[in-house]
Amino acid sequence: MLNVYLSGEIHTDWREQITQGASDLDVAFNSPVTDHAASDDCGVAILGNEPNKFWHDRKGAQMNAIRTRKGIEDADVVVVRFGEKYKQWNAAFDAGYAAALGKSLIVLHGADHAHALKEVDAAALAVAEDPVQVVQILRYVLTGALPA
Amino acid sequence: MLNVYLSGEIHTDWREQITQGASDLDVAFNSPVTDHAASDDCGVAILGNEPNKFWHDRKGAQMNAIRTRKGIEDADVVVVRFGEKYKQWNAAFDAGYAAALGKSLIVLHGADHAHALKEVDAAALAVAEDPVQVVQILRYVLTGALPA
Amino acid sequence: MLNVYLSGEIHTDWREQITQGASDLDVAFNSPVTDHAASDDCGVAILGNEPNKFWHDRKGAQMNAIRTRKGIEDADVVVVRFGEKYKQWNAAFDAGYAAALGKSLIVLHGADHAHALKEVDAAALAVAEDPVQVVQILRYVLTGALPA
Amino acid sequence: MLNVYLSGEIHTDWREQITQGASDLDVAFNSPVTDHAASDDCGVAILGNEPNKFWHDRKGAQMNAIRTRKGIEDADVVVVRFGEKYKQWNAAFDAGYAAALGKSLIVLHGADHAHALKEVDAAALAVAEDPVQVVQILRYVLTGALPA
Amino acid sequence: MLNVYLSGEIHTDWREQITQGASDLDVAFNSPVTDHAASDDCGVAILGNEPNKFWHDRKGAQMNAIRTRKGIEDADVVVVRFGEKYKQWNAAFDAGYAAALGKSLIVLHGADHAHALKEVDAAALAVAEDPVQVVQILRYVLTGALPA
Amino acid sequence: MLNVYLSGEIHTDWREQITQGASDLDVAFNSPVTDHAASDDCGVAILGNEPNKFWHDRKGAQMNAIRTRKGIEDADVVVVRFGEKYKQWNAAFDAGYAAALGKSLIVLHGADHAHALKEVDAAALAVAEDPVQVVQILRYVLTGALPA
Amino acid sequence: MLNVYLSGEIHTDWREQITQGASDLDVAFNSPVTDHAASDDCGVAILGNEPNKFWHDRKGAQMNAIRTRKGIEDADVVVVRFGEKYKQWNAAFDAGYAAALGKSLIVLHGADHAHALKEVDAAALAVAEDPVQVVQILRYVLTGALPA
Amino acid sequence: MLNVYLSGEIHTDWREQITQGASDLDVAFNSPVTDHAASDDCGVAILGNEPNKFWHDRKGAQMNAIRTRKGIEDADVVVVRFGEKYKQWNAAFDAGYAAALGKSLIVLHGADHAHALKEVDAAALAVAEDPVQVVQILRYVLTGALPA
Repeated sequence: MLNVYLSGEIHTDWREQITQGASDLDVAFNSPVTDHAASDDCGVAILGNEPNKFWHDRKGAQMNAIRTRKGIEDADVVVVRFGEKYKQWNAAFDAGYAAALGKSLIVLHGADHAHALKEVDAAALAVAEDPVQVVQILRYVLTGALPA
Repeated sequence: MLNVYLSGEIHTDWREQITQGASDLDVAFNSPVTDHAASDDCGVAILGNEPNKFWHDRKGAQMNAIRTRKGIEDADVVVVRFGEKYKQWNAAFDAGYAAALGKSLIVLHGADHAHALKEVDAAALAVAEDPVQVVQILRYVLTGALPA
Repeated sequence: MLNVYLSGEIHTDWREQITQGASDLDVAFNSPVTDHAASDDCGVAILGNEPNKFWHDRKGAQMNAIRTRKGIEDADVVVVRFGEKYKQWNAAFDAGYAAALGKSLIVLHGADHAHALKEVDAAALAVAEDPVQVVQILRYVLTGALPA
Repeated sequence: MLNVYLSGEIHTDWREQITQGASDLDVAFNSPVTDHAASDDCGVAILGNEPNKFWHDRKGAQMNAIRTRKGIEDADVVVVRFGEKYKQWNAAFDAGYAAALGKSLIVLHGADHAHALKEVDAAALAVAEDPVQVVQILRYVLTGALPA
Repeated sequence: MLNVYLSGEIHTDWREQITQGASDLDVAFNSPVTDHAASDDCGVAILGNEPNKFWHDRKGAQMNAIRTRKGIEDADVVVVRFGEKYKQWNAAFDAGYAAALGKSLIVLHGADHAHALKEVDAAALAVAEDPVQVVQILRYVLTGALPA
Repeated sequence: MLNVYLSGEIHTDWREQITQGASDLDVAFNSPVTDHAASDDCGVAILGNEPNKFWHDRKGAQMNAIRTRKGIEDADVVVVRFGEKYKQWNAAFDAGYAAALGKSLIVLHGADHAHALKEVDAAALAVAEDPVQVVQILRYVLTGALPA
Repeated sequence: MLNVYLSGEIHTDWREQITQGASDLDVAFNSPVTDHAASDDCGVAILGNEPNKFWHDRKGAQMNAIRTRKGIEDADVVVVRFGEKYKQWNAAFDAGYAAALGKSLIVLHGADHAHALKEVDAAALAVAEDPVQVVQILRYVLTGALPA
Repeated sequence: MLNVYLSGEIHTDWREQITQGASDLDVAFNSPVTDHAASDDCGVAILGNEPNKFWHDRKGAQMNAIRTRKGIEDADVVVVRFGEKYKQWNAAFDAGYAAALGKSLIVLHGADHAHALKEVDAAALAVAEDPVQVVQILRYVLTGALPA
């Protein structure tokens, strides 16, 4: 059984494409909370309001870290997706965290981001552009089957 | 003696401000190669040209990784600076790598980046806006002296 | 599945509040032996009396350590509760042990202990005052759901 | 050469007694910042004021953690002193942190604290009541010489 | 569930006493091959004879190490029994191996061996004389129940 | 349950001999993709063609590494088979990788390769010539039974 | 200071080319014993003859492993050279050992070996054909200077 | 520089033979306190008398462990000597401890102990009978020179 953590961009359906495409494989998927509002406000919603946005964010980011760390530490493979928008520094942070733990890293991004992501890609075992390729990699890794 | 690695933005003189400000302290500083052109082209300059930009970048990024990994792994403290421009995913990658190794992390960035960097900041022991503050932190950590 | 160790204060029903509140979640809870008399006397009850109280305590503390270490080492999340009374140095010791192993730490205490616990809190991913908040954190971390 | 970290109580001269008593030995001593006011306020003094005491303390505690972690991680032996007053949870936290890293732990406290510290003592290789005994232990460990 | 490895003496029924006494507990027991002749000759029986007794022994000891290492590395608790006869250096070796891995160590031996085993005992969390005590320890650690 | 990774030569049926011979034992076997063409071309088949054979090979080797690393890291025992032909540097690489991780290593090769493999054999707990011997080792390690 | 271990082929002067070319850099080089006869016979020369060549080789390979392991474990960078002749399985074993320890790996071989070494190359941060390139890499990594 | 710890038997001059024989080599030697009386009584001499011999021994053994653990953990090579007399379980314990940490182990004993020490020898990289051989091994490992 392969444990796969799906990190990064949360505004498109790439996670669904992968989990559905791999639904016949012996894979367990984990991911961060992908509800943007919940993810931003979880800290203050549970532990109390903060007038200062910095500490508002800190409370939330640390609460999300409980899930993220477990997801990455339990994973055999970490897939990190960089989308078209936003800074996405948390995605790159997760990639570095996964790399330092010796996880197999797959990076997923469009060709236009290639130069800016060269250090992240250089730590990866595969760089893909399309979620379908990630499914094909998982299928090959688990069964040896290549796409027809 | 404190071993400090200075990661991230290479277009302003923040590293010089820190190393000069801390010149009387028992600190050894390391950093990546900060010559942008050399850093981009080192791989092909030594190991031969690549017509495909992706592999051109790969060769360079992996060569730079020899220096970066040693710098981070030898460090007690990793300072990561995020500047005003560029994606700077390598900086966030270094921060994640350092965090996973249990290094003491100091993040340095302007207030406007605070929300986008909240996950990185949440893994840090200090978040500063000015290189002078990093010098003050190093001075306090080593000598106990606070700024007048 | 999340493995949670509940360390610290043994004189109120906070563990029951958490385990009952989280009974619908995919969590496995562990905790020390919370029978105070058994915990104090287990060593001599099994391995023979000691006239010297110091060694009486040593035998018991080391026997309890078999359970405590396994509980912490197996855990994804360690919750440490500081109550109103007693020195509770074993709770702080467990928190330090968990932090050094990179466990996600949640600290639970009243506001009046905040200053005295600042170093422990600084190593935690969440600081709560009420067991209900711990249940809410576990629920959010596992399901993404926030309290209504 | 033996690297020794002196953690805990900061209101008596026990550190001076040990460093002076061991001044002829091949030992390097480290310790936290022992200026109570500086230690409490370092965070806001350098990184800016916080109206909320909780975050005031957090900033300071995390800055002190840069020094504490390095001190403990570099140490061969960690001596933790519990004094007569205060909660001293940071001392017990350091003891747990050191124990989890496999450091040789020496605990120093009066007999009246023995029962409350039994879990901490049970993780130690020596439990002493007087700083002179710590010097004698270091001398024996390094030279084999026992007190006359 | 507690994983317990039973190392050491193979000429009395102490393992049976423990496994039967703990048969109602959530414990998985492992142990070396306890058939003395098979254990001595396994190497040459499978991989071919050796005229030199030293290499005859080497082949067997390394084959047994496949089982022993897995047993110790998978264990939460390692029980090491020293009997009345023989050098039993392999038992002490297993104890050292387990201690270095941070396993909870229980040593089982008669009072007459106490001085000779003082370094081994000093690394243990419990020192027992009778297999019944080991069962009582396991029962207490898992359920909190003490002997009547 | 013993987790065994079967690394190395892919042109004879030695894996089938072992898995069939051990089919009654509590062993889980893993191995690399043994379809030579798929293994060579997986990278470009999924991630796109490369005109340069070096990068064609790189893409494939890194994709295979996702499977190989998991196989070795999950294993209790790594069996490495060296056949009669080819350089088989990947087999020796896997052996070194497994040795550094402290896995129990069994090397399988003909007598004529003994001198060239002396460094690899020296890191192994058993050196066998025939797959039947590997089955016998696994049976002995798990059950204590020797061949009749 | 960079610690570099030079592993592999011992019949050409590639080590001298590298150490002389890098003589002005802050590098400490280590390597195996490169006297072929001494390396083959060290075991029996010191520990006594063995009539069986297998154990003759074992004694020598294990003695050499004392030096090799220290060399690799102390290294920041491991350079592995594959020459034109021989099986060189020990070189590939060292590469795997270094990779598992997270060392920066540089592989040095002629283009004709590229396909056979693809798994080893895929674990490396640089693949060079000429010792001069290794010197240029070390110079760049330490000083940032590229070849003119 | 090679760091060597000399563990085990303390009644003959084998340590002196090795340190004098290797006095021209770049080796740093460490060893336990070899004054038998001091080693037995150090605990009570410094920390106070114990009427019960078991705790008398415990105090001493734990104090000696401060030195022993540092000696083994700092070592590249651990030499363990088994003499003609006594149980010497602490020597076998040290060997197991060193083996679990991946230290290069050299075992030194007479031929008559070979069968009883087969598990310890099987974890070693060299088994010698005479201290002169240990000197020769260290000389070869450091310089490549074999005895004339």
